[in-house]
Amino acid sequence: MELPVAVDAMGGDHGPAPVVAGALEAIRADGARVVLVGDEPTMRQLAGAPELFADHRLAIVHATEVVSMDDQPAMAARKKRDSSMRKACDLVADGLAAAALSPGNSGALMATALLCFGRIEGVLRPAFGTLLPARTSIGCSLLLDAGANPECEPVHLAQWGVLGATYLERAFELERPVVAVISNGEEDIKGTELTRAALALLKKSDVALRGYAEGRDLNRGDVHVFVTDGFTGNVMLKTAEGVFRFVSDEIKRGYQRAGALAKLGGLLSKPMFARMRDELDPREVGAAPLFGLARAAFKAHGSSDAHAIRRGIAAARRYVQHGVDAHLAAAIARNAAAFSG
Amino acid sequence: MELPVAVDAMGGDHGPAPVVAGALEAIRADGARVVLVGDEPTMRQLAGAPELFADHRLAIVHATEVVSMDDQPAMAARKKRDSSMRKACDLVADGLAAAALSPGNSGALMATALLCFGRIEGVLRPAFGTLLPARTSIGCSLLLDAGANPECEPVHLAQWGVLGATYLERAFELERPVVAVISNGEEDIKGTELTRAALALLKKSDVALRGYAEGRDLNRGDVHVFVTDGFTGNVMLKTAEGVFRFVSDEIKRGYQRAGALAKLGGLLSKPMFARMRDELDPREVGAAPLFGLARAAFKAHGSSDAHAIRRGIAAARRYVQHGVDAHLAAAIARNAAAFSG
Repeated sequence: MELPVAVDAMGGDHGPAPVVAGALEAIRADGARVVLVGDEPTMRQLAGAPELFADHRLAIVHATEVVSMDDQPAMAARKKRDSSMRKACDLVADGLAAAALSPGNSGALMATALLCFGRIEGVLRPAFGTLLPARTSIGCSLLLDAGANPECEPVHLAQWGVLGATYLERAFELERPVVAVISNGEEDIKGTELTRAALALLKKSDVALRGYAEGRDLNRGDVHVFVTDGFTGNVMLKTAEGVFRFVSDEIKRGYQRAGALAKLGGLLSKPMFARMRDELDPREVGAAPLFGLARAAFKAHGSSDAHAIRRGIAAARRYVQHGVDAHLAAAIARNAAAFSG
Repeated sequence: MELPVAVDAMGGDHGPAPVVAGALEAIRADGARVVLVGDEPTMRQLAGAPELFADHRLAIVHATEVVSMDDQPAMAARKKRDSSMRKACDLVADGLAAAALSPGNSGALMATALLCFGRIEGVLRPAFGTLLPARTSIGCSLLLDAGANPECEPVHLAQWGVLGATYLERAFELERPVVAVISNGEEDIKGTELTRAALALLKKSDVALRGYAEGRDLNRGDVHVFVTDGFTGNVMLKTAEGVFRFVSDEIKRGYQRAGALAKLGGLLSKPMFARMRDELDPREVGAAPLFGLARAAFKAHGSSDAHAIRRGIAAARRYVQHGVDAHLAAAIARNAAAFSG
């Protein structure tokens, strides 16, 4: 029997209800095993389902504290020792769960998981990864660092390229994922000292390297892993989010102001837009792991609904079932010489 | 009679035809005066309109060379002394034209204009500005540096904030434009050494400062001027462009794959989408000047059509008519003490 996924049920924007519901879906529809961590009476009431407890497919671990979105990450990790986030990570560190999943405070999750798991040997800085809808064969691309490290050294970016490629290769069974360094132009002379040095290191690694890529390449599908510093990565993601929302709002506004015929057109177009939204839905690709930690910690979006939690649990299980941990460690070890020069 | 705008007719992606057509529109519809610079026989044939020459509303200056998109900027500026780009700038430097406009190689235009005009006294680094569609009262926001300076110091960003705000204030008659520094979060502790120091300098300046802004704020409308280093600015613009194109393509693809009713919906929606495209059209806001130069040089998009050229000429004339040059120099002088500490 596989080890369960430990799910922080308390830290999301919408409280424990969608998290518990998503866990139940993952158990019933996907055959997952889950330990919910949080306020026991609340979760027990939300869960119902005594048969799942009897089968050891669902368990509850009580935690008295909650990490809020405003908590300072290092403080939350060190001081809130009885938080649902911390106890979910402890279960993994203690070998009672295979992976931790949290929709809570990203920075706090990084600090907590780092404290509980440590880094993969040789990894200098862990990073956030974000999966974006893209025309690749797996329907997404991976951008990292998405914001953990605003100031970076070249070797950090190079290691993330190796980690990202190995993750997609193993968890998504994608052959030879293509890696690129985000820059302000395609030619090797472009970029900054940081990007040029990162590119030089990656050329010495064993990843399939495209070279530089630009902001407009994120969704195109010929690159699978984009590496950049956490400042640029965060700004890119928020720019993409802002433009997406702006365009969506403009379409809505356009229909509102339009004549009767165009309004009818909007009505008839609804199923098409709904299908498109589903396809581009970031929840579908599921959560991404924190990259560079010795064990699996997955960050789900703060506003995750039950479906997103279910998909996050599936992503965590895929990671565990494919033994991604060991492959990541091996890839870092294999490229250590290339990056040390 | 106002001095003419000197227009580089040769450097755009589509050759001189749309540039000449745009100049004629600007003259006839807006009352502009234009000097076209490039291959004289070609332009004379394209222009026709002997009455405009007779009225001194249109003139042609011959140039034997063309700066291509592949030319290395510094080389193009120094070696191609008889290029249409260089001669357009020379006309401004010699007092024969009020402003230069070029749809050509951006880097070469920056290098050429810098060589011909020099910088505003006290400005350390000139920058590219890009106008983006946004829900401000003027329908756009300004991002700079859009790519001239991949590696920056804090005072560069601070000066661009002053230049950008002064430009919008004078050329668009916008009262107290709001300036923000692009960062990876709203709180002052976020960002990098560069952004924190730039923010500290701007706090000492006389601009209306919002503080930090994120990538998602570009179109929102409560900030008018976003400053960032040229690496991040370039990556942001290309990310925005890529997402916009991805969403447009997905909508097209969605309609193609949809059933007959949704296809009809798409047909009926066409006027709405066309109107939206017009409103979000970057050509409508016109070209932006290069910021920090002693005289006015405007960069039009390489793929500009006649309408975009006409709007670019209008933007250049607005700059000249409002005496923006002098206001920019005064703003830099006024804030020199704040930025020198």
